[in-house]
Amino acid sequence: MYATRIARVRARMAEVGIDALLLSVGPDLPYLTGYEAMPLERLTMLVLPRTGDIQLVVPRLEAPRVTRRPELFAIVEWDETDDPIAVVAAMIRRSARRVAIGDHTWARFVLDLQRAVPSCVFSRASEIVSPIRMVKDAAEVEALTRAAHAVDAIAHGMRSVPFAGRTELDVHRELVERMLAAGHERANFAIVAAGEHAASPHHEPSAARVIAPGDLVLCDFGGTMDGYCSDITRMFHVGEIPAEISDVYSVLVEAQEAGVRAARVGTACEEVDAASRAVIAAAGFGEFFVHRVGHGIGTEAHEDPYLVAGNDRELEAGHAFSVEPGIYFPGRFGMRLEDIVVATADGPERLNVAPRDIAIVA
Amino acid sequence: MYATRIARVRARMAEVGIDALLLSVGPDLPYLTGYEAMPLERLTMLVLPRTGDIQLVVPRLEAPRVTRRPELFAIVEWDETDDPIAVVAAMIRRSARRVAIGDHTWARFVLDLQRAVPSCVFSRASEIVSPIRMVKDAAEVEALTRAAHAVDAIAHGMRSVPFAGRTELDVHRELVERMLAAGHERANFAIVAAGEHAASPHHEPSAARVIAPGDLVLCDFGGTMDGYCSDITRMFHVGEIPAEISDVYSVLVEAQEAGVRAARVGTACEEVDAASRAVIAAAGFGEFFVHRVGHGIGTEAHEDPYLVAGNDRELEAGHAFSVEPGIYFPGRFGMRLEDIVVATADGPERLNVAPRDIAIVA
Repeated sequence: MYATRIARVRARMAEVGIDALLLSVGPDLPYLTGYEAMPLERLTMLVLPRTGDIQLVVPRLEAPRVTRRPELFAIVEWDETDDPIAVVAAMIRRSARRVAIGDHTWARFVLDLQRAVPSCVFSRASEIVSPIRMVKDAAEVEALTRAAHAVDAIAHGMRSVPFAGRTELDVHRELVERMLAAGHERANFAIVAAGEHAASPHHEPSAARVIAPGDLVLCDFGGTMDGYCSDITRMFHVGEIPAEISDVYSVLVEAQEAGVRAARVGTACEEVDAASRAVIAAAGFGEFFVHRVGHGIGTEAHEDPYLVAGNDRELEAGHAFSVEPGIYFPGRFGMRLEDIVVATADGPERLNVAPRDIAIVA
Repeated sequence: MYATRIARVRARMAEVGIDALLLSVGPDLPYLTGYEAMPLERLTMLVLPRTGDIQLVVPRLEAPRVTRRPELFAIVEWDETDDPIAVVAAMIRRSARRVAIGDHTWARFVLDLQRAVPSCVFSRASEIVSPIRMVKDAAEVEALTRAAHAVDAIAHGMRSVPFAGRTELDVHRELVERMLAAGHERANFAIVAAGEHAASPHHEPSAARVIAPGDLVLCDFGGTMDGYCSDITRMFHVGEIPAEISDVYSVLVEAQEAGVRAARVGTACEEVDAASRAVIAAAGFGEFFVHRVGHGIGTEAHEDPYLVAGNDRELEAGHAFSVEPGIYFPGRFGMRLEDIVVATADGPERLNVAPRDIAIVA
């Protein structure tokens, strides 16, 4: 699997004219080698030339954590008093003119490398790896599906949990605990926003805001399970749902459905955004849908492709992304509905199956 | 407090000749503004010129999370279809020639900015902020002390917990839970390494390795509490301690004590390392102490100053760092002893007070 991915990356390097790929922290390194670099002041860096041997430069302390794959890459350990920048520079100085470096690499290492090899021109590794990483294979879609079903079960379970009298932070903690209990190795976020707080799409759960009868509560949560991310948003209402909220919500449901339906292979990303946006605009709420309709998902919670105006990339089979329109009335209430969707030859496939209506809770 | 820190930073910018400081993800931004940027594809960036207005460029979605401090900085929100790189570039293009950018900024933003303002020369923000951030004030030392005492209590509590029959991963989880229960908002790491595993300083706790009688177990754990980090290493032995382990451990205790004693204001960082190393070398174990003796600590788990050969920076009052020599016998066993220490005018002060002997556990 890693060998196939590396071959694809090298083919693209040749196509784009990149001589060496340098990968450190972030998702590209594990995608190609199975090893994730620690976000440390001690540099870990894969040096992947277009042809020739691949080397993983790694601090000696971290080397025992690396799963050896000698058929793929050699391990070059550096000691506490070595200069890892000099080690990497020596590997690329003579052979590389155009270098692509991992998008999440720390600035300090980018600047140090630029100074060490002033003859090299640096660009983003995502231009090489992202188009490949974006297309999920069957095993990856399965992993995303397992993660999606894990949070589906949580969204479902929360429908019979009392909300009133609890703080947002308390519900947030329950979501985090449930994600870990459901097999996620990591909870990435758990937004709980009640009433007027939900009008801020990325609201931070509050220890002060107590959920009360009549509150519409937004729960947007996700984590990482076996390396792949989940992400779901569902709405909860304490007690009977007022007509105004029902009415707006029905627009949202229709907008989300329109976005999902639009997400066909060959459709431009921006058209998926436009499809959801058109429904909300037609209902007169256009100005209250203040963000893009979705983001790609995989080993990163947010990755390419982004479903946003201006992105004319066409969807391919295996692209996985969120479709999550929202409507936010400042100072009053807000709502969002989110599923993960995969584009397939047979059309868009939702991975999340939890009920999409507003749950009435106590 | 933030105003004072910003004034110090500006004075240093003038001294070093930096026209603008650009801060994104990482510890410098919260140190100067109280706001921590989300590690997102949506750019957050503080533009801090040497003189004139400070602006925080932030995605509109995140803006409600920012605590407004209009006396310090203006907030410039950007919309989903705006280009935040162009926004930042416009702010610095005319006035800045030499720019320092946060060390942890993602490579993609560094490269985009370099392309947008080709006339600017970029360097590391740490050259400006780190010498200031390194010197902890009384409130910061207090926060580090509270975090230290929280993990001290855990280290103490673990002395009466059974180890035998449990996996490393199980003990790891207990440490994580105890850190959260003790008031840490985040557990940063919890190394549990039994027997031969402890010979790898950064061993990953295993779900397969069951701790057994006769195992020497290394526990190195820390987290973040009220924004400041804890970090402690203590050793545990299942049953009576063999003479060999006692003998080596007494060398380690002496080495750690020598390191702490050496950590006086005015001493070079590398001399602290050398002081510990000399004790271990004199006992004939020099080749088995394979890492630097310590790292600075604050809002980051690892930060300046690093106590390592080659670092001739002199300790100042308020510098906080770990002193953690180790002795590792590959394939057999390993040990480390770690306290957080602050350099003060009255000499080095250990923040950790948990017993330093090997705890005998069941």
